[in-house]
Amino acid sequence: MTSTITVRHGDATTELDAGATAIQALKALEAVRGQIVAARVTVGSRPPQPWDLDREVPDGAELEGILADSEEGRAILRHSTAHVMAQAVTDLFPNAKWAIGPPIENGFYYDFDVERPFTPEDLDKIEARMAELLQEKQRFVREEVAREDALEEFAEQPYKTEIIELVGDGTITTPVEAPDAPEIGEGGEPTFTVYRNVRPDESVAWSDLCRGPHVPSTDRIPAFKLLRSAGAYWRGREDQPMLQRIYGTAWESKKALTKHLQLLEEARKRDHRKLGRELELVHFPDELGPGLSIFLPHGAIVRKQMEDWIRDETLRRGYQPVYTPHIAKEDLWRISGHLENYGELMYPGMELDDAGGAAYRLKPMNCPFHILAFTSRTRSYRELPVRISELGTVYRYERSGVVNGMLRARGFTQDDSHIFCRPDQVVDEVAACVEFARDLYRAFGLGEPSRVAISTRPEKSIAGHDDSWEAAEQALIEAVKQTGLDYEIDPGEGAFYGPKIDIHARDAIGREWQLTTVQVDFNLPERFDITYVGDDGAKHRPYMVHRALFGSIERFFSVMVESFNGAFPTWLAPVQATVVPIADEFDGYAGEVADALRARDLRVEVDLTDDTLGAKIRRAQTSKVPYALVVGGAEREARTVAVRPYRGEQRKDVALDAFVDEITAEVAERRAEAAAG
Amino acid sequence: MTSTITVRHGDATTELDAGATAIQALKALEAVRGQIVAARVTVGSRPPQPWDLDREVPDGAELEGILADSEEGRAILRHSTAHVMAQAVTDLFPNAKWAIGPPIENGFYYDFDVERPFTPEDLDKIEARMAELLQEKQRFVREEVAREDALEEFAEQPYKTEIIELVGDGTITTPVEAPDAPEIGEGGEPTFTVYRNVRPDESVAWSDLCRGPHVPSTDRIPAFKLLRSAGAYWRGREDQPMLQRIYGTAWESKKALTKHLQLLEEARKRDHRKLGRELELVHFPDELGPGLSIFLPHGAIVRKQMEDWIRDETLRRGYQPVYTPHIAKEDLWRISGHLENYGELMYPGMELDDAGGAAYRLKPMNCPFHILAFTSRTRSYRELPVRISELGTVYRYERSGVVNGMLRARGFTQDDSHIFCRPDQVVDEVAACVEFARDLYRAFGLGEPSRVAISTRPEKSIAGHDDSWEAAEQALIEAVKQTGLDYEIDPGEGAFYGPKIDIHARDAIGREWQLTTVQVDFNLPERFDITYVGDDGAKHRPYMVHRALFGSIERFFSVMVESFNGAFPTWLAPVQATVVPIADEFDGYAGEVADALRARDLRVEVDLTDDTLGAKIRRAQTSKVPYALVVGGAEREARTVAVRPYRGEQRKDVALDAFVDEITAEVAERRAEAAAG
Repeated sequence: MTSTITVRHGDATTELDAGATAIQALKALEAVRGQIVAARVTVGSRPPQPWDLDREVPDGAELEGILADSEEGRAILRHSTAHVMAQAVTDLFPNAKWAIGPPIENGFYYDFDVERPFTPEDLDKIEARMAELLQEKQRFVREEVAREDALEEFAEQPYKTEIIELVGDGTITTPVEAPDAPEIGEGGEPTFTVYRNVRPDESVAWSDLCRGPHVPSTDRIPAFKLLRSAGAYWRGREDQPMLQRIYGTAWESKKALTKHLQLLEEARKRDHRKLGRELELVHFPDELGPGLSIFLPHGAIVRKQMEDWIRDETLRRGYQPVYTPHIAKEDLWRISGHLENYGELMYPGMELDDAGGAAYRLKPMNCPFHILAFTSRTRSYRELPVRISELGTVYRYERSGVVNGMLRARGFTQDDSHIFCRPDQVVDEVAACVEFARDLYRAFGLGEPSRVAISTRPEKSIAGHDDSWEAAEQALIEAVKQTGLDYEIDPGEGAFYGPKIDIHARDAIGREWQLTTVQVDFNLPERFDITYVGDDGAKHRPYMVHRALFGSIERFFSVMVESFNGAFPTWLAPVQATVVPIADEFDGYAGEVADALRARDLRVEVDLTDDTLGAKIRRAQTSKVPYALVVGGAEREARTVAVRPYRGEQRKDVALDAFVDEITAEVAERRAEAAAG
Repeated sequence: MTSTITVRHGDATTELDAGATAIQALKALEAVRGQIVAARVTVGSRPPQPWDLDREVPDGAELEGILADSEEGRAILRHSTAHVMAQAVTDLFPNAKWAIGPPIENGFYYDFDVERPFTPEDLDKIEARMAELLQEKQRFVREEVAREDALEEFAEQPYKTEIIELVGDGTITTPVEAPDAPEIGEGGEPTFTVYRNVRPDESVAWSDLCRGPHVPSTDRIPAFKLLRSAGAYWRGREDQPMLQRIYGTAWESKKALTKHLQLLEEARKRDHRKLGRELELVHFPDELGPGLSIFLPHGAIVRKQMEDWIRDETLRRGYQPVYTPHIAKEDLWRISGHLENYGELMYPGMELDDAGGAAYRLKPMNCPFHILAFTSRTRSYRELPVRISELGTVYRYERSGVVNGMLRARGFTQDDSHIFCRPDQVVDEVAACVEFARDLYRAFGLGEPSRVAISTRPEKSIAGHDDSWEAAEQALIEAVKQTGLDYEIDPGEGAFYGPKIDIHARDAIGREWQLTTVQVDFNLPERFDITYVGDDGAKHRPYMVHRALFGSIERFFSVMVESFNGAFPTWLAPVQATVVPIADEFDGYAGEVADALRARDLRVEVDLTDDTLGAKIRRAQTSKVPYALVVGGAEREARTVAVRPYRGEQRKDVALDAFVDEITAEVAERRAEAAAG
């Protein structure tokens, strides 16, 4: 037994009495800077672990503070706030059973089994009760509990009991199912971590199974807000009970909270489903099923521009188009490994009495089809790289809880390509993909990529291939370096079959969206035994690069709708100009103006309704048409138009010919900057 | 009992002894002209019936001869030949069981249950035996047999027994299941018609259940040929036994047979599957399943031209594009009536535990989705017509026996539109569809429609709507008249929900293909309760016009492949020009030539292989590239090319600039005539 321990922070070390807490250690090391909510503790070769500030640190620990205004720090704050909320719900609804309550992006939630859905008034009361609990300065206290004690303690909480059983027997393996599953002790009898909300008089107010860590006490939560409630299935599964989920958010300061609430309000106004309905872009009829939608004519015109751009650009860049079906016999998905590794996200089989009794499956990915195109004949090294491309619509059975309009849909179209190349071609091919994505973001008004992340080999990855992993990761890094873009490494975040690059863009209100993915794959070339004949006459295995630049057409479209707030750049706008005659007698000239624009393949409408001029101009504005062209006697006389752009200055007496040239040039150059934001 | 009967042909009537046969009546009426194989007999108000020449005619019958060189006459000839073949097979394979043997387009088949598949040598022997039977002058004799006698007679023939049982209880209702099912006597006990092959000595050589009629005797079959054998499931169902089918053909003269066999040979050379493989247009990998295929890059480029043309033309003609999913909840197909009326052709459900336990179904048609787009908001009479359009990929579970490459596939893409309009707009809308189809055939090198057929109300059609049927049929006729095209009426061939127009085109070797369909629908507008607000402020039901001009992209594409024999017009060709340097040292100039063409968005390859000049030119020819451009020293010096077109005259010393302008113009004008045939 040592009675002292050594702790470290960067180059500094110090000795402390055994039993010292993380906060004591950090103070002794003079490592407390800014507002910290927890520590990050590394012992020996184990990966760093987040750590309660009041938890004892082991000998030899290296410590860092986790700042409240970091993403990791906010997650801890939010997780603690979720516990406070659960206690408040329990106080107000004593019969409530609690399920799970993890931090999520920008906030947290907690799921409850209650007799009726929560009302907005309930949320107000819960929020008020939470404010009282914050005032009380309850501490969050960690305890390790034996399995049977945990079962006894939570005997009245069926969801907790189920978690103990599921975690205990290893059934729960994914964060979707239990994002805040308790930590299980290593070796011997499993122990479970429990966190208790403890009043200043040391009485326990509430307890939960939880992995932690938490802030030391409730007064360390600077700002929070409950947002809304919604039904959610237990474990995200439609065959399980429906629970009531309360969403909230918490921040490191009142100012940060206010800023976030403003962003939420702005995002609500721009929601692609809301704008989709108002501007007749998209439609989500119940008859189709969750995650399935229709592009209405206005949306379809925008989508056509996206498709035309990518189809022409891929041809120009030496890709070879293919068209493949949406279904194939189940065997294909067995060869590809999708049934085994991806089966949960695949729609179930269509059972047929076809020769061999095969079931057919909808495709969740296009890869196997592109491989069949590549292997349709022998390939020579001289042909490589072969870049197969398709606008391929895929279907993935996402849980209804995560479906989110067209941003996360069950049916969506990828601008999908698979590049078969020699190892020495990977860097150039990947660099070209990243440059292609850059050109795409620029063309569609999203500016430069906001983040490029390279995800490396995960713990669970296909066996062998050590050299390939190393080489492929280096190739991705090399490729991104070629483009001059900054990048980050996401260690261990690659796919099981190879490393990848994720490219993000930032929208007009500052939100970041993951759009493009470029992946290297060692797995499918083996599974399908793909080869090419080398200059030595022997068979070689090509590398396979998967890449989708829009990612999903539907998702990219939705990001544009929200970023442009529905006001598309002129080249993309469903209607590019509306001609508004100030009275019936100018309908003829209005038609001439429209014809002059249509002769340049522009999309024009003439407002021939009986409405007032004011109403007509308001309608053009509401429908976010880039240009309203008002025409009356003076305009007809001089063959001019009065230009009222959706954004920018009004101009009178613009010569019709000049305006036609101007807008034609704007469209031809795909000018996007004017409409952004 | 009358001892005499009256018979009629046109204006002529005559009296005959009762018991006179059709041939006797026709002769008495002096109505035998040309080579006839059977009669057409009309009694009272019943529809005309084909009739054996040696069969007694009833009193009051009106008669006509059926000519051997008419489609109906050939079908009778072929049906008789099928019986001769079945007898020959029975003679040579005494254990063979016979299933069915109907006439089909251009020929006939018969299915047998035999111990092993037929070999080409077997077919030779069967053909030889048939020739002997023709020499024997066996008569075809019709007999009506009671059900139990039929069961006894065919006790050793399980398929015949099954047919008696299935027909007897009304299970068999479609011609697919039993195209030559026997006629059943009307009223009282059902009787079955049997046809017997009877030797000159009156002994019965062979008998079959059969609806008839037949030629009088085997020597009336002027020319026949067996073509091939293949496996075929009993009743076309994969869960039934596999039989061996022999295909043959028969004609009214040796000359007609020879001409047909030449056409078959020409068609075989042009088969889109064969050319698809050779020219890398399409691919039918076994891994996908029957009727599912991949457009390889060369085919995909042609398809892209087709899609670009139709997408741009529909926009130009005031159609509104949409994109819809390939699946929807089963309920949608219940509302639309597809499950009830079309369920057999739909892929089975994907059973999910989604809210409500709904199954999802692949779409066999796009209509319900386009209706959802139309009903996404209230529509005013002012907006009509609303023309919703989409390139919609549909899936139909065609029996594997009828699947035929891309000509009849299980997955295919329709250029599908649904026009919602007021009754007074139907004529103009339909006429515009027919004109649109005409423009399409012209653009893609198929010339003028070869046949326009208007199909009227069938016996089994939706109740009521008598006025609508009348009006819609008249509207279709009126619309076609507007276009100035000739048309035929196909009485009773309309869909159960409305009349339709089918448009056919003739390919370069004279075959006719049904491509375009325009249908009027009274059914779906009711089922979905579709309305628009009229100028009276009240709700009205619009008419709905379904139309697909290509029909299926895959089918139209295949027709083009076969019609052009793989040599597409330049604007459609996957590769439009190949530059062939006569030696390495001219590779640079070859590249310049290619760049000059690419600058005009032309699809060009440079042949940089080490092959001989002759091999390079042959390869350009084999791959049916419209232009091979040969370049050497003289060309480089003078900046010219030597032009070797796939068709037409070779030209030397053509100035590069002039050639670029020439081919650019050819492509821009979509010139098709040069390559046709």
